[in-house]
Amino acid sequence: MSGNTFGHVFRVTTFGESHGGGLGVVVDGCPAGHPFPHARIAEQMARRRPGQGKLTSARQEADAVQVYSGLEPETGLTLGTPIMMMVGNSDARSHHYDDLAALYRPSHADYTYDARYGLRAVAGGGRASARETVGRVAAGTLAEDLLAALHGIEIVAWVAAVGDVVLPAVDEATLTRAQVDASAVRCPEGHVAEDMTAVIEAARKQGDTVGGVVRCVVRGVPAGWGAPVFDKLTADLAKAMMSLPASRGFEVGDGFASTRLRGSQHNDPFVKDERGQVRTVTNHSGGIQGGISNGEAIRLAVAFKPVATIFQPQQTVNRAGEAVTFQARGRHDPCVLPRAVPMVEAMAALVLCDHMLRARLATMDGLRR
Amino acid sequence: MSGNTFGHVFRVTTFGESHGGGLGVVVDGCPAGHPFPHARIAEQMARRRPGQGKLTSARQEADAVQVYSGLEPETGLTLGTPIMMMVGNSDARSHHYDDLAALYRPSHADYTYDARYGLRAVAGGGRASARETVGRVAAGTLAEDLLAALHGIEIVAWVAAVGDVVLPAVDEATLTRAQVDASAVRCPEGHVAEDMTAVIEAARKQGDTVGGVVRCVVRGVPAGWGAPVFDKLTADLAKAMMSLPASRGFEVGDGFASTRLRGSQHNDPFVKDERGQVRTVTNHSGGIQGGISNGEAIRLAVAFKPVATIFQPQQTVNRAGEAVTFQARGRHDPCVLPRAVPMVEAMAALVLCDHMLRARLATMDGLRR
Amino acid sequence: MSGNTFGHVFRVTTFGESHGGGLGVVVDGCPAGHPFPHARIAEQMARRRPGQGKLTSARQEADAVQVYSGLEPETGLTLGTPIMMMVGNSDARSHHYDDLAALYRPSHADYTYDARYGLRAVAGGGRASARETVGRVAAGTLAEDLLAALHGIEIVAWVAAVGDVVLPAVDEATLTRAQVDASAVRCPEGHVAEDMTAVIEAARKQGDTVGGVVRCVVRGVPAGWGAPVFDKLTADLAKAMMSLPASRGFEVGDGFASTRLRGSQHNDPFVKDERGQVRTVTNHSGGIQGGISNGEAIRLAVAFKPVATIFQPQQTVNRAGEAVTFQARGRHDPCVLPRAVPMVEAMAALVLCDHMLRARLATMDGLRR
Amino acid sequence: MSGNTFGHVFRVTTFGESHGGGLGVVVDGCPAGHPFPHARIAEQMARRRPGQGKLTSARQEADAVQVYSGLEPETGLTLGTPIMMMVGNSDARSHHYDDLAALYRPSHADYTYDARYGLRAVAGGGRASARETVGRVAAGTLAEDLLAALHGIEIVAWVAAVGDVVLPAVDEATLTRAQVDASAVRCPEGHVAEDMTAVIEAARKQGDTVGGVVRCVVRGVPAGWGAPVFDKLTADLAKAMMSLPASRGFEVGDGFASTRLRGSQHNDPFVKDERGQVRTVTNHSGGIQGGISNGEAIRLAVAFKPVATIFQPQQTVNRAGEAVTFQARGRHDPCVLPRAVPMVEAMAALVLCDHMLRARLATMDGLRR
Repeated sequence: MSGNTFGHVFRVTTFGESHGGGLGVVVDGCPAGHPFPHARIAEQMARRRPGQGKLTSARQEADAVQVYSGLEPETGLTLGTPIMMMVGNSDARSHHYDDLAALYRPSHADYTYDARYGLRAVAGGGRASARETVGRVAAGTLAEDLLAALHGIEIVAWVAAVGDVVLPAVDEATLTRAQVDASAVRCPEGHVAEDMTAVIEAARKQGDTVGGVVRCVVRGVPAGWGAPVFDKLTADLAKAMMSLPASRGFEVGDGFASTRLRGSQHNDPFVKDERGQVRTVTNHSGGIQGGISNGEAIRLAVAFKPVATIFQPQQTVNRAGEAVTFQARGRHDPCVLPRAVPMVEAMAALVLCDHMLRARLATMDGLRR
Repeated sequence: MSGNTFGHVFRVTTFGESHGGGLGVVVDGCPAGHPFPHARIAEQMARRRPGQGKLTSARQEADAVQVYSGLEPETGLTLGTPIMMMVGNSDARSHHYDDLAALYRPSHADYTYDARYGLRAVAGGGRASARETVGRVAAGTLAEDLLAALHGIEIVAWVAAVGDVVLPAVDEATLTRAQVDASAVRCPEGHVAEDMTAVIEAARKQGDTVGGVVRCVVRGVPAGWGAPVFDKLTADLAKAMMSLPASRGFEVGDGFASTRLRGSQHNDPFVKDERGQVRTVTNHSGGIQGGISNGEAIRLAVAFKPVATIFQPQQTVNRAGEAVTFQARGRHDPCVLPRAVPMVEAMAALVLCDHMLRARLATMDGLRR
Repeated sequence: MSGNTFGHVFRVTTFGESHGGGLGVVVDGCPAGHPFPHARIAEQMARRRPGQGKLTSARQEADAVQVYSGLEPETGLTLGTPIMMMVGNSDARSHHYDDLAALYRPSHADYTYDARYGLRAVAGGGRASARETVGRVAAGTLAEDLLAALHGIEIVAWVAAVGDVVLPAVDEATLTRAQVDASAVRCPEGHVAEDMTAVIEAARKQGDTVGGVVRCVVRGVPAGWGAPVFDKLTADLAKAMMSLPASRGFEVGDGFASTRLRGSQHNDPFVKDERGQVRTVTNHSGGIQGGISNGEAIRLAVAFKPVATIFQPQQTVNRAGEAVTFQARGRHDPCVLPRAVPMVEAMAALVLCDHMLRARLATMDGLRR
Repeated sequence: MSGNTFGHVFRVTTFGESHGGGLGVVVDGCPAGHPFPHARIAEQMARRRPGQGKLTSARQEADAVQVYSGLEPETGLTLGTPIMMMVGNSDARSHHYDDLAALYRPSHADYTYDARYGLRAVAGGGRASARETVGRVAAGTLAEDLLAALHGIEIVAWVAAVGDVVLPAVDEATLTRAQVDASAVRCPEGHVAEDMTAVIEAARKQGDTVGGVVRCVVRGVPAGWGAPVFDKLTADLAKAMMSLPASRGFEVGDGFASTRLRGSQHNDPFVKDERGQVRTVTNHSGGIQGGISNGEAIRLAVAFKPVATIFQPQQTVNRAGEAVTFQARGRHDPCVLPRAVPMVEAMAALVLCDHMLRARLATMDGLRR
């Protein structure tokens, strides 16, 4: 209802403000008996955190996820009970934010939070901070681990565009996270990564910011996941991605480009492969037809706007409605894209893990097994 | 869970197959005491139905919505109890579909339904038919009427692209449905509408289909609607639109184009207007910041792929996995765009009506009023 | 949210007023591939309907359930899509109710509906009528059929008390619905049934009504169903039963009587039976421990107050707050108990079917199967 | 879905095992701008904790609730974002429990947890411990504070029976928590409290335990709260109470006793009081008619079975199915009733706070205010 919970069966509830007592998540609905993936989560948390290089915010976050419940102490197996994970807020310098209480930073959530709630946590943007995604990444990586354990599913996202620098097609069938992480900007093609880095650096020097596109592929999803009407995989993935901070667009398969194709060009012919499996020759649909997975790779993209915090003077108003000039200080990413990569992976995992579980209940035959 | 319900407070559950006993919707959570908008619903149902012209499917649907519950008989006022609306399936010629039972039409939901459920309603695509949107449009128009009654909100969608024919910007502040409906293709600019019509006709003659883009503006939403984390307005609108048949992409505000802007270009400066209201000078954000409405017009776009049913022979497989040739027959739209216009409006209304109600509970001050 | 939906995975949404266009239910989440149990549903509907004998209301309801969606036409198999079932309102004599619009019948929902909604459907009590349970019984019997098909589960309820006439213990391990239906009052012991009948008849002659207790046993539920905190089986069964019209109390196992036992008397010792199955020697717990089924028979009871409609003059007020005398007319049960038997069975089935599906997702081992 | 969340608008999710990293709760949906009631919560936590006297378990729990999110640091006002509260597990002596891992204590949740999850947190009963209610009481007291702030509502529960010692009627219109707390057993009548204490002490000396009944009155709920079908106030209160550990029965108003009344005795006549308010002369209905509050005091009762942990040797089986003798050690309540009082109050508050918010959306008139 208040929108801090995601998922139906694998349910994730996040809490916490950027500079309060901690940020965390409760995962309810994780099946019992799974070895908790501490290392995998630590890895994705490291990819998510700021301060990884000069491309991103200098804020040093420990981001060490502590698990408070839901695990058998001796074995580390999941108990089937709620798993609460939290990250402390050690590096909070809230005095940086004191002078922000009264004014509305352009294209931030300051004004809209005040409009909705009548007050807001000023320090660090409160819950509107990108730091809110800590819980998503922790929970999403647990989801990813379940998908891998039960179906061998792999999720890989990468930066596909920064500003005007666009990465041409990559081999999505074989792309790995190691390839993605070869550059700090998380673009798997070296020379494109260099161009993207140059664009980001140029913006930073001007106190400006840039946006871009993250693409994601999910390999190994069997046919038959997704619900056919409101909870189409397309719909739930869209919601997941468009709930990420700064996201402004989403597409699946050929997306907006599909609008310029004829049906005869876009349709994916069915064939039977050597193992007797129904497959499609092409994958314009991005692995989802009628909202349900068809066994092909799921392909999606998310557009992120340029970060709102720029280091140039901006005209705005304060709470009293007086015109004021705002000059940002502090530590901020000139480009959110590299850090968005694990966030996109996490959200994809949350959607698919939920639908993996839901699909288990779809048929009487499945229930008899 | 099974994905046939949408919304949290204003909850809509649809049911029905294309050629079964009827298609309908139960609306739960409509406040009591509202005059039921029979005429407004009939109007939108007429805009939704096929057979409006040669641009769309020739199937004649009565689509007269009958209300079975939730209204006071004497006054037509909503009772606060569930409102069940249904449309009968009078014009069903299911023998057209007999030979479809065994084969998988490319880029339809035949294969994925079989993969999920082990069987499917063959006639008319069952629940995967665009006819499933009957209930959405009926319920969405009721939602729209509540939005209009309580806040004077206006929702207008239009066809902004068909294939390569793209409509340049229109005056979104004044655009009306009458202007949109001036052409059968529902593009408000006459000469662009003609170009679009030509593209559709050319495709039809070749037994082919085309895709396109619907844009939508919502005027009058006050600041403060939307939840800040998973249920951002951006997220819920994305889910709503990406749950429509054939949708492949979604964007809000400047969307994908915003990825090519600098922060200094994209940020919307705040000012106070003559009435003392905080406003933004520009509206790159599309009326939503941090997932919450800021009082500006909400602007969004939805990409629809070309319809899968083409009248050219296509290679595919049947249930036994044998390669077969499929040749479509029957009545089908070469372009879903004109009919998608009221569907987009309806889904926008469902999201906003739900959030209008939810916003009412956000603050103690609001509850005291 | 508005409380017309029950269940999480096997979700039931009812709609309809007593004298409107029809009463029905949408079942969402029924697995695909199950033969729809038309006959079983008709049977339970017949047990639910009034006019079965002089003990119950003389209103003749057709109560023939028509299925509008969710079934494959040729085979009658469930499609996995929403199943909409509806019963028409053929025998509506709403003029009987005209003079009720302005006054509040004591211990009816007239005043509380007005307090909540500002208006109400006067005829037949609208949605507060016992006729609202039509949809519950139809959906619950479908649930019961799934429980029987997948686990051989049997649900039998009976009238255990009417006024002061209390049935001593019956053999719950073997009791059948045929034994229950041997008397019109649905008490399986003939002489007790006669006493109950006498009590009901005496009340009727005085224009009065009586309450009583329905007991229910569920046999065959395996160990491990139920969630351990808020959604304990005890809790969900309690909610289910206390949502029935006129219910005022609920207990499971030894219930209120257990409060007078010592722990050493109430505890159920564990043993292993000849098949190697863990069992309990006694069943004071009623088959549920820590909210989760333990494999023993689930035993529960529901208290129903005397029907509010009596045929004696009563003091009350009208909408204007003026004191008036109310004298009921029309057709009403002097005792709701016999008809409550299938309602209790249906609600038990809804709870257990939902938890059967949920239990399928509890462990990684279960998901691997 | 996994049953760790309660409520629709005012949503409470609990987490934590008895001897793990902590027990806590996330409250989502608390309106913004409310002064957080630290003191009120500390008070109820003190009433809930064991070790208050010789009547209850000797375990010393700090039970100091720490708030990690959702409050404005400077003012302590609620932010409208999730409020996470947690209590650490300082006094854990898990070696007491080592020998319990392999055997099933009679009438505990050991066997059923194993049956459901395949493993369980052995120490302290894990999540099946009464300590799980820490989060409920913290969240429920916040709910109570909102009910008091917005409507002046008062909730008072007391011990109405212990074993065979039953408290006759008290003056529910004036009863205070101070009166209830006058005795350690929380029975407001001194001599009855003494009898109850004697019964508990006698049981303790024999290594045995006793059950009892808690009654609760809620004063000040306006007419019109509650949803009329599945989410009747009766139903939601029943679920709330029957989700408490050891609860076995629930009744509202006259409850089971109402089954022995005639309708003419049970009906509550309406009158208009001196302030022009519709009231009932009697309150057999317990303040709820048709599932909706009628403005009278809400009256309910909850039956608690005797605690399962007795200090007598008991026959049972271990995981291998071998017959073993179990002899409990450690710290346990001989009677849960005194500590159940604040739990019942908390659960009542959670239900009513949720319905208070939901009622705000019931009518167009209400939304216009």
